[in-house]
Amino acid sequence: MPVGTSSSVGLLHAEVQQFYARHMHLLDAGDGEGWARTFTENGSFAPPSLPEPVVGREALAAGVNKAAAALAEAGEVHRHLLSMVAVEERADGTLGVRSYAQIVATPRGGSPRLHLMCVCEDVLERVDGELKVRERRVTRDDLHP
Amino acid sequence: MPVGTSSSVGLLHAEVQQFYARHMHLLDAGDGEGWARTFTENGSFAPPSLPEPVVGREALAAGVNKAAAALAEAGEVHRHLLSMVAVEERADGTLGVRSYAQIVATPRGGSPRLHLMCVCEDVLERVDGELKVRERRVTRDDLHP
Amino acid sequence: MPVGTSSSVGLLHAEVQQFYARHMHLLDAGDGEGWARTFTENGSFAPPSLPEPVVGREALAAGVNKAAAALAEAGEVHRHLLSMVAVEERADGTLGVRSYAQIVATPRGGSPRLHLMCVCEDVLERVDGELKVRERRVTRDDLHP
Repeated sequence: MPVGTSSSVGLLHAEVQQFYARHMHLLDAGDGEGWARTFTENGSFAPPSLPEPVVGREALAAGVNKAAAALAEAGEVHRHLLSMVAVEERADGTLGVRSYAQIVATPRGGSPRLHLMCVCEDVLERVDGELKVRERRVTRDDLHP
Repeated sequence: MPVGTSSSVGLLHAEVQQFYARHMHLLDAGDGEGWARTFTENGSFAPPSLPEPVVGREALAAGVNKAAAALAEAGEVHRHLLSMVAVEERADGTLGVRSYAQIVATPRGGSPRLHLMCVCEDVLERVDGELKVRERRVTRDDLHP
Repeated sequence: MPVGTSSSVGLLHAEVQQFYARHMHLLDAGDGEGWARTFTENGSFAPPSLPEPVVGREALAAGVNKAAAALAEAGEVHRHLLSMVAVEERADGTLGVRSYAQIVATPRGGSPRLHLMCVCEDVLERVDGELKVRERRVTRDDLHP
């Protein structure tokens, strides 16, 4: 099911990859506010660890800052690696993006481990020319039914 | 060895990435028929585990459906993550693509593990505007000579 | 902070991905000379394992050839997988690229393991139309402060 000419598919896909690279660098650097600005104002994130989605930039930033403090305390670095990013243009102008997420954890002085393997389903929206996450749902492979 | 203008290289590379993302989502979802349609009609796949290549959509689909049933039985999810995708345009109009494939396995309730590390060598062909796999050879790093 | 139109961002990003795929294939194949030619003539590489950067193609090639011989001796294959590649166009025409690097090690007959998790910071330059690494700094997550 082609979603446009091969050129437009390619261009959009590459722009989305660039978006996610910066987005994950901000997350892994523990920059809650910077990361939250890559969501829309009312962006939501439904992580596998919480019963309700986190909604809005303030709450999104607070969650990251808290997690970053806990990791620093534990002496561990986490990296979020998205791969197999499939982008679908929707009729309403948003992008549906499905990808895999490896979360790699490395303790200070220790070996890295593949901490979690997840699937990430995003709705991206263009705001003033820039891509933003409007909605994210993440599921963990170890919790599959 | 540049294979075109920098623009055409980029466009094609991004389109190939998008192709593989959908291709692997179908595989990991256990959708044998959907996955087989991303091969040419007589597409072939030489996996490291079999003495002969699997040829044709029917056989390709059957292999995936069987593997999916075994994984469901075992309560394990597998993900195929391609990376370092190098695309080369060939004189006959096909694309030679070399990439790395991580296969990540996650048991229900357990930790993910890097199950296999492989090299994937594909010949892609454009059929009615869409990329298809004509030929695939996969080698496992643990079985290197 | 957009660095150009969305089209130019996408094109450049995809070209950079293609560049790194070939670059890492050369490295992992132990082709020291081929790999060194993807650096500028005076390109430098500051790996986490050495007190001083390696400078110039001859030294870069020698380092790879030596490492490849040691891996062959040990019966181990290493793969370098870059991900989350963020490309920034700089005013001087170079590209600043930040990415994550997984180094996967697989012993002959054994299971693959995530050997190291690193961050790679490159300055890329275009020489006669082709991208080259002018400068690389790599840091290991396990050695974070």
